[in-house]
Amino acid sequence: MVVGIIGLGLMGGSLGLELKDFDFIDKVIGYDKNLEHQKEALELNIVDEIVELKEIKKCDVIFLAIPVEGIIKIVKNLTDIDKNSTIIDLGSTKEKIVESIPKEIRKNFVAAHPMTGTEKFGPKAAFKGLYKDKIVVLCNIEDSGKEQADIAKKIFTSLKMKIVYMDAKEHDRHAAFISHLPHAISYALANSVLKQEDPKSILILAAGGFRDMSRLAKSSPNMWRDIFKQNRENLLESIDVFKKELKYAQKLIEEKKWDELKEWMQKATTLHDIL
Amino acid sequence: MVVGIIGLGLMGGSLGLELKDFDFIDKVIGYDKNLEHQKEALELNIVDEIVELKEIKKCDVIFLAIPVEGIIKIVKNLTDIDKNSTIIDLGSTKEKIVESIPKEIRKNFVAAHPMTGTEKFGPKAAFKGLYKDKIVVLCNIEDSGKEQADIAKKIFTSLKMKIVYMDAKEHDRHAAFISHLPHAISYALANSVLKQEDPKSILILAAGGFRDMSRLAKSSPNMWRDIFKQNRENLLESIDVFKKELKYAQKLIEEKKWDELKEWMQKATTLHDIL
Repeated sequence: MVVGIIGLGLMGGSLGLELKDFDFIDKVIGYDKNLEHQKEALELNIVDEIVELKEIKKCDVIFLAIPVEGIIKIVKNLTDIDKNSTIIDLGSTKEKIVESIPKEIRKNFVAAHPMTGTEKFGPKAAFKGLYKDKIVVLCNIEDSGKEQADIAKKIFTSLKMKIVYMDAKEHDRHAAFISHLPHAISYALANSVLKQEDPKSILILAAGGFRDMSRLAKSSPNMWRDIFKQNRENLLESIDVFKKELKYAQKLIEEKKWDELKEWMQKATTLHDIL
Repeated sequence: MVVGIIGLGLMGGSLGLELKDFDFIDKVIGYDKNLEHQKEALELNIVDEIVELKEIKKCDVIFLAIPVEGIIKIVKNLTDIDKNSTIIDLGSTKEKIVESIPKEIRKNFVAAHPMTGTEKFGPKAAFKGLYKDKIVVLCNIEDSGKEQADIAKKIFTSLKMKIVYMDAKEHDRHAAFISHLPHAISYALANSVLKQEDPKSILILAAGGFRDMSRLAKSSPNMWRDIFKQNRENLLESIDVFKKELKYAQKLIEEKKWDELKEWMQKATTLHDIL
């Protein structure tokens, strides 16, 4: 089986590093529109070969590991793949992506979202183990061909991932709260500090808490603009929910209602009974 | 030199574990009003002995490692210490604490804020290395006696901490942005998810990003209610700044101004050039 990866950054690159070890995969080839990334990917042994996009189309399995707007653009040009091929996208949004799949290749397509990543990007950010023990969400799997679904499951299982099935709409709503809202908050927190008179003298005090809360604000603005664009409605709703919570806390602090504030915080700590 | 620690949780406990190794410290004794914590602290070898509060008063150095409201209460009862003693508080707020120090022991007092911690609390959370390579802020050090300031510096340097000097007012403003606001945000994020119809099915998707962003929401509501109370004005101001940033992003998303949104995120990523 020959696997082709489009996009050799953190997600695609880490995937390449793993897939080359699987005995059911003969060869991993890759494409990245960024020439520098092509070179890096070869140097880092992420893929066996860098090829043109048209070569990727001949692969048995094609991974789309590019920003979500790129997935929607590229999928239109994949209608001439072999009828048994499997296309797996790794995008962080799912509804707009599944809507964009041309009918003639819908069965070839498996919509996946591996719930993993770091704030880093590019081939140099790739590492073995990114996928291990993490969740991967497969969306609207009933619309994929059985053969294609089986191949995707085999690969994700070999990566030691835990598979969760979900409707694309539901996925996007959940992803807004668990991932997209936290990113928006982290960018907002970073900008709040940067707007202060002397950010340096504030940042000298940064400890683990602030580092954790601002880590996501290192993430690729290109990639996240696309995600926010595709999950706009859910994200706006989640921001509204969050703003209400913060406003409630603010009101309690303003009105010096310390017992109610403690209760509100106590409620928040129960999250970790579920998490 | 005999050191007494009041409060044997994460901060006081981790301190006890370290101080016992220093050759200039002969004995570390402790007090905690929680009987269970007293027992745990002895079992975990955090202190050599558990004593009554009146015994602590006889120590050469007294650490106050309790919630900030507790510090203000207890400091009034420390006027009968030996005139050469050093009292060091480890509270997360500083302005209200320095204001509360009785004049007759002002020179004995060193106001410190070690910029370290975890979301855990109690003696079981204590560990060696909590202080190592971290910043400690010493506030209004010109109001402390020279001998007392020197002892504090010696201890923090022995803990391998980096000392930063700051005015208490300035500290509190900075701490609001770097620590108190991030905690309020984390509690609000946790409560936002908990308010949803089916938090479990959202939380199953949690990866590193969400875990980092919600970690602070595990912190002790008792301790944080006190901090929010003492740093109320700065915290409210920082929440306002943050809300403006988030509102700006929300507006760009609503109006589909994707280029401006990317610029806003790009600006946020520059935080990490300073941090």
